[in-house]
Amino acid sequence: MLRGAVQGGWYPDGQLPSEAELMATHNASRATVRAALTLLRAEGLIERTQGIGTHVVVKPVKTSLPEAHGVIKPSRESLWNRRMRPREIDRSVVPAPTTVAARLEVAPDTPCLRLEYVALHDEEPIAIATNYVLFPEAGKLRDTPFVSDWYRLLEDAGVELSDSEFIFDCELADAPLAAALGIREGAPLIAMEQLIYDLDGRPFDLAFIHTRGERFRFVSRGIRQEQA
Amino acid sequence: MLRGAVQGGWYPDGQLPSEAELMATHNASRATVRAALTLLRAEGLIERTQGIGTHVVVKPVKTSLPEAHGVIKPSRESLWNRRMRPREIDRSVVPAPTTVAARLEVAPDTPCLRLEYVALHDEEPIAIATNYVLFPEAGKLRDTPFVSDWYRLLEDAGVELSDSEFIFDCELADAPLAAALGIREGAPLIAMEQLIYDLDGRPFDLAFIHTRGERFRFVSRGIRQEQA
Repeated sequence: MLRGAVQGGWYPDGQLPSEAELMATHNASRATVRAALTLLRAEGLIERTQGIGTHVVVKPVKTSLPEAHGVIKPSRESLWNRRMRPREIDRSVVPAPTTVAARLEVAPDTPCLRLEYVALHDEEPIAIATNYVLFPEAGKLRDTPFVSDWYRLLEDAGVELSDSEFIFDCELADAPLAAALGIREGAPLIAMEQLIYDLDGRPFDLAFIHTRGERFRFVSRGIRQEQA
Repeated sequence: MLRGAVQGGWYPDGQLPSEAELMATHNASRATVRAALTLLRAEGLIERTQGIGTHVVVKPVKTSLPEAHGVIKPSRESLWNRRMRPREIDRSVVPAPTTVAARLEVAPDTPCLRLEYVALHDEEPIAIATNYVLFPEAGKLRDTPFVSDWYRLLEDAGVELSDSEFIFDCELADAPLAAALGIREGAPLIAMEQLIYDLDGRPFDLAFIHTRGERFRFVSRGIRQEQA
């Protein structure tokens, strides 16, 4: 609950209440409150300054899931409104690995553009993504400058999408992911697979995305549908 | 990529290709392939049997995010079609903690029903949730038998919802979460905060939910909206 309050920015000015207040508010023992604070400190979410108190140090970006899907016009403050910058790692044409080809519904080894990049926000790595893009879209993307985010790149390349699907869970950062994202090994990451469809409903892009758990909070809203 | 293929069930009969095949398919060195396999074994996702090969041992449940939101009728195979069973930990009326009260838009210490439970699937813990429910809904829920899932409980209690919002990120299991879910400390979890609204758009239920990362994969689909 405390983590939710810290990550959600529910404390004014990022100042946490005192241990005594936290004990009273949550009807918890001092040991429980301290264990929670120690955990959040270990994760780098809060900092304690002798004589001043405990402060929130990380403000995660709240991201609307439909914006992350690339299917709505991003809001002004959105990450997807030119607030990210890519650090390209690789952009080359490769044969599609078997499992990638299966998801893109093409034969194994079908040529595709592999584009791997780290997404930076305020010059800090927040996510890493590896895209496999089929031709003809790959041909349009191959030489288009990549200036902010993936959907901007698609737009600049004249590639249109109809919808996109995420399958997501979470995992621990292994050494290469930790190095690429500037975090410690074993830190939690949201792992997403994204399949992007063209206007005819054909999947043309499969991406493997890892986002930093403490930097990204996704917001998803579900509206009740009429029951049959 | 290998993890995605393992978790996604892309290998027929759960049988992984040989190291040599994986090296060829992914254009990777033997060391890289082995490091990936070692990691997946350490996470308990695959098992190696001498002379037989490598098999997938965990089949995560793929869950549609709108079903998890409780806003569509669950499909036949859905977890939300009576495939879960709760193990109740606590059901009692408590004063709302400050940060909970703020999100529910009531005064701190407003009485609410605290209902905490572990969700079991095939008798295995897959998630843990703590709900704070305001009155009058709390009065209806207080004595209703909890037989399968949260939305079934609301229905049985005659409580209707209009929509629900998730804010989610991921975190590491601390000792109490690990014990409740039967996993090791430091395992990755999806952490969700859910706010459920009544038919007048008033939030009446705030839940803190943790789902096991290797057991749950959420599926979210975004359809392109017309641009302004």
